[in-house]
Amino acid sequence: MAKNLVGIVMGSDSDLKIMKPCIEILKEFNIPYEVIVASAHRTPHRALSYAETADERGLEIIIAGAGAAAHLAGVLASVTTLPVVAVPINSTPLQGLDALYAMVQMPSGVPVATMAINGAKNAALFAMQILAGKYPEYKKLLKSYKTQMSVEVELKDKKVAEELSK
Amino acid sequence: MAKNLVGIVMGSDSDLKIMKPCIEILKEFNIPYEVIVASAHRTPHRALSYAETADERGLEIIIAGAGAAAHLAGVLASVTTLPVVAVPINSTPLQGLDALYAMVQMPSGVPVATMAINGAKNAALFAMQILAGKYPEYKKLLKSYKTQMSVEVELKDKKVAEELSK
Amino acid sequence: MAKNLVGIVMGSDSDLKIMKPCIEILKEFNIPYEVIVASAHRTPHRALSYAETADERGLEIIIAGAGAAAHLAGVLASVTTLPVVAVPINSTPLQGLDALYAMVQMPSGVPVATMAINGAKNAALFAMQILAGKYPEYKKLLKSYKTQMSVEVELKDKKVAEELSK
Amino acid sequence: MAKNLVGIVMGSDSDLKIMKPCIEILKEFNIPYEVIVASAHRTPHRALSYAETADERGLEIIIAGAGAAAHLAGVLASVTTLPVVAVPINSTPLQGLDALYAMVQMPSGVPVATMAINGAKNAALFAMQILAGKYPEYKKLLKSYKTQMSVEVELKDKKVAEELSK
Amino acid sequence: MAKNLVGIVMGSDSDLKIMKPCIEILKEFNIPYEVIVASAHRTPHRALSYAETADERGLEIIIAGAGAAAHLAGVLASVTTLPVVAVPINSTPLQGLDALYAMVQMPSGVPVATMAINGAKNAALFAMQILAGKYPEYKKLLKSYKTQMSVEVELKDKKVAEELSK
Amino acid sequence: MAKNLVGIVMGSDSDLKIMKPCIEILKEFNIPYEVIVASAHRTPHRALSYAETADERGLEIIIAGAGAAAHLAGVLASVTTLPVVAVPINSTPLQGLDALYAMVQMPSGVPVATMAINGAKNAALFAMQILAGKYPEYKKLLKSYKTQMSVEVELKDKKVAEELSK
Amino acid sequence: MAKNLVGIVMGSDSDLKIMKPCIEILKEFNIPYEVIVASAHRTPHRALSYAETADERGLEIIIAGAGAAAHLAGVLASVTTLPVVAVPINSTPLQGLDALYAMVQMPSGVPVATMAINGAKNAALFAMQILAGKYPEYKKLLKSYKTQMSVEVELKDKKVAEELSK
Amino acid sequence: MAKNLVGIVMGSDSDLKIMKPCIEILKEFNIPYEVIVASAHRTPHRALSYAETADERGLEIIIAGAGAAAHLAGVLASVTTLPVVAVPINSTPLQGLDALYAMVQMPSGVPVATMAINGAKNAALFAMQILAGKYPEYKKLLKSYKTQMSVEVELKDKKVAEELSK
Repeated sequence: MAKNLVGIVMGSDSDLKIMKPCIEILKEFNIPYEVIVASAHRTPHRALSYAETADERGLEIIIAGAGAAAHLAGVLASVTTLPVVAVPINSTPLQGLDALYAMVQMPSGVPVATMAINGAKNAALFAMQILAGKYPEYKKLLKSYKTQMSVEVELKDKKVAEELSK
Repeated sequence: MAKNLVGIVMGSDSDLKIMKPCIEILKEFNIPYEVIVASAHRTPHRALSYAETADERGLEIIIAGAGAAAHLAGVLASVTTLPVVAVPINSTPLQGLDALYAMVQMPSGVPVATMAINGAKNAALFAMQILAGKYPEYKKLLKSYKTQMSVEVELKDKKVAEELSK
Repeated sequence: MAKNLVGIVMGSDSDLKIMKPCIEILKEFNIPYEVIVASAHRTPHRALSYAETADERGLEIIIAGAGAAAHLAGVLASVTTLPVVAVPINSTPLQGLDALYAMVQMPSGVPVATMAINGAKNAALFAMQILAGKYPEYKKLLKSYKTQMSVEVELKDKKVAEELSK
Repeated sequence: MAKNLVGIVMGSDSDLKIMKPCIEILKEFNIPYEVIVASAHRTPHRALSYAETADERGLEIIIAGAGAAAHLAGVLASVTTLPVVAVPINSTPLQGLDALYAMVQMPSGVPVATMAINGAKNAALFAMQILAGKYPEYKKLLKSYKTQMSVEVELKDKKVAEELSK
Repeated sequence: MAKNLVGIVMGSDSDLKIMKPCIEILKEFNIPYEVIVASAHRTPHRALSYAETADERGLEIIIAGAGAAAHLAGVLASVTTLPVVAVPINSTPLQGLDALYAMVQMPSGVPVATMAINGAKNAALFAMQILAGKYPEYKKLLKSYKTQMSVEVELKDKKVAEELSK
Repeated sequence: MAKNLVGIVMGSDSDLKIMKPCIEILKEFNIPYEVIVASAHRTPHRALSYAETADERGLEIIIAGAGAAAHLAGVLASVTTLPVVAVPINSTPLQGLDALYAMVQMPSGVPVATMAINGAKNAALFAMQILAGKYPEYKKLLKSYKTQMSVEVELKDKKVAEELSK
Repeated sequence: MAKNLVGIVMGSDSDLKIMKPCIEILKEFNIPYEVIVASAHRTPHRALSYAETADERGLEIIIAGAGAAAHLAGVLASVTTLPVVAVPINSTPLQGLDALYAMVQMPSGVPVATMAINGAKNAALFAMQILAGKYPEYKKLLKSYKTQMSVEVELKDKKVAEELSK
Repeated sequence: MAKNLVGIVMGSDSDLKIMKPCIEILKEFNIPYEVIVASAHRTPHRALSYAETADERGLEIIIAGAGAAAHLAGVLASVTTLPVVAVPINSTPLQGLDALYAMVQMPSGVPVATMAINGAKNAALFAMQILAGKYPEYKKLLKSYKTQMSVEVELKDKKVAEELSK
């Protein structure tokens, strides 16, 4: 069994519905991953020790999804040199703007790579882009994914043409 | 020598100029305090162990001042049951809105009491209000501070009247 | 019968649904509390005299929940030295941002401790943290509450694992 | 000596520089006015009793200028049926947006007529428009003020033409 | 038949549901009013000539409700010296913030008195406060309205007490 | 068959429901148009070559509708001298503000004419206004459209009057 | 002497410094233009009659620059079928966001083509793009302008390389 | 001579002062890099062909810094599977918020890893974290960088202590 390359951390089980597309991409492309619920605020040590041991356990990327004052990604990034990818989640009346600011505005020295609000799918694709620098098989998959996206746009174009010709 | 009741944590030495009015209030009212620089992102363990031992060392309140994706207050609050008072600091092009959101929008279970952007003076006064519930001498001081503020407003009123009569 | 320690003031009965989690926490932990509807704008004197007499009646903390141009917390804080904890309520098209700004941006001299938008539960927990400085029994309860939160995160972790293994 | 028709209340003497154009308009048009410094937070009773007695003292309009969590206008409006005109002042890193929201988003039942951020001049003109309904001499003045503004625009037009023809 | 004192202008018939509470207050207090649909953009001359003749027709106040780039109030104010009261309406994805800015940020010389987003009820009450300066019967009504509001708050207080005692 | 004058590009088929009113106006006024789905990010070359050949194929205006980080209009404008009209689409939790900023804030040298969020109908009318400078028949149609809009406002006025008289 | 094709309207002479780059582009490319100061609020009739007669006087495009609650473009667009291009000007503490919203969020039926905040240069280029559909000489100029821009980027590239090699 | 691993693209030479800290980190850690000025809007083909050939030329990461409607990162990411790291630059009155939204809100399928506004230093550190997964020497450097940061915080702590003891 392959060791996991990507660790997905989410602040609460309620974030699963937003993080699902991230998991599905990793599954689709056979990237070994693991999922953990750990809160920067409710279980700080669990979150920290997860990140602190991630590297030695073989993880190469951490993806963190959280809402509100979303400190999760920053807290994980503070104790690892692995790339941390952040997904700000829309879970308060501020519509994810609080999570976006709390993730993207990291101070100098501790970077966090932030995706769009609720942009879980892109977090997986970005992780794959990182891995592709080391594992050529993923680069091939990414290239065909890009081709497929462009084909889908052409199909959508036909769909629109059909709908308009009705 | 009295043990310190209030611990002021700031994310960087550049935050000192904003946090000064906080320190001055505590000094003015003889509230024993201490000041430490600890970053949630650059020195997470320093920050955590400061907060984890704060209670047993006799601290009763922690004040945290930080800018940008200001996780400091939340990180401290995650490992202590002491009240944590947060001062969002204006230190990025987002003018403190990033720090405000990152501090005030804490998820359920881990409260952080947030002051105005750059509102360091109020953090000290609020700490004093907390202490006043237990130490009656502070309540007296707060009451005379309130009286003095109201006297100052009357003086300002005179100043304005003079300026306008020129 | 114990005298009440926490006074919850809300601007309107329509705020009750948001403030409920605050009341439930206080009830759960047996913190004597009282609830009053008083509006800074519709019943200013009722609001003021509630706050002015709060201290002598034995209250130790006031929690104020209000929406829109939410002046309630500031008005209460203007006439008491008790700590005032504010809950900005999302009740207008500005999604609580108006209430947040109107509560958190208090001028120097009159602090208000602001929670997240709709963050009523944290207001109760923060009040408890204040009380715990004076009443050790609450500190114990807070510590076990923190432990319980961390256990719940682990349960959520299992729940997610199960859902993903389907 | 004419009794004052307009009462200008400002939260602090530091607001005078912003409120000056308001005072100058009233002076220019010989509208009897008075100026007072009173803070909704530092001197709530002073502010309230000013507004409560304003009507019987002959005031017909109150203009309130304040920054930050600007409760002043709302607090005054809560105890008088006189029209209250509000000037949100830019005095924090939120650039007056906090004051604007805290003034304009008044709940149903207690209106406050809000001007632009730092829009002190318009507060005076609006007061004059109110007075003009009752005192015809002001209506005449307003009409010639409008004419004069339009003449000034034509002068500016010439100034621009000259500058461009250089 | 009394001549109308208040003219309510709305940008579209779709604004009626928001402006209804304004109309109801005027009806309740027997303030003669009229309602017109006129758009600053679709019928500029209709809007302008309405405002230009308002004064001579006996109107004393104009209330304008509009959404989006809500120029209606400013356009009306540009051609009359009557007080213009603006109600920014939430009718776009920007949630009324566009209408608020387009109404409240009027340049010097042409004031518009802005109410809260969707704050139609307050527009009517503010109009009444203006009229009360000239027509004493409205002042009496406003005072009893204020008393009634305060009584209602006490009733809401009882309602909350009952609900909590269940 | 007339060659197409207006090319409508949308980033995804899901944007069709927002762009429909644009298409309907062009159809109503017999302006020859074409519709294409092309994404600045998923099919950059398709988007670019569409814009690069637009001029020689006889198109005179390009309308681009897109949401999120809406680069479509800017990308098209980068390779053509035809006027590009942009419709920011509300398709994320930021409610179209992201698309608005990504479209309207174009740097010097490459203009994009931005409409309101979801303002597809106006994009078509603006295209028609451009065409009317060259093809007088469209100017006539635009003038009667303007007249018709003003008639509709009067009908809405009657509708409101009727509803209020119930 | 060629009749003017572009009319530039600005709300105040203070807007000239922002609108200068617009004028310079038109001058550089020999596009006949005229400049007028007219305020939607201070000189509504001047503004309206300018727009109403623009078409018959031979103007083909109107460019409007204004700040604050910038109604100018919308007011002009309400009485002409000529394309109106809007430049929101940063002139208040809201940093041009008020002008942007007041210009771009036009309701259906009356389009205004909005440029970036302070984006006066692009307004001229966009006007030129419109004219180029009818007057082929401008298309040629635009194409060489595009080429020149791309050459300048290469020069900037060299400049950066030099600076970095120091 | 080592082939370059990181390509830094900036939209204009005026962005150099913000991107400098990025270049300095790469230089300090001996990561081979190159710098190019290429604009998504002024030189789209230059930008695209740079990104399209980046992979085969041996680049492993692209860093893009741009302001305003910052499409640069998205345009580069559209034609490469290399990880693209974005630095939104504060260069307009919207203070970098426009660039942030235009970079971070990328649609599904084409991720861009966004740093803080003006966060150029973190872009370099994040690139290094990516490279460290493949080139172990960088991991060692990152770890000692982290240690050094924590030492610096302790030095800052002493500096603050000294300043306060004056």
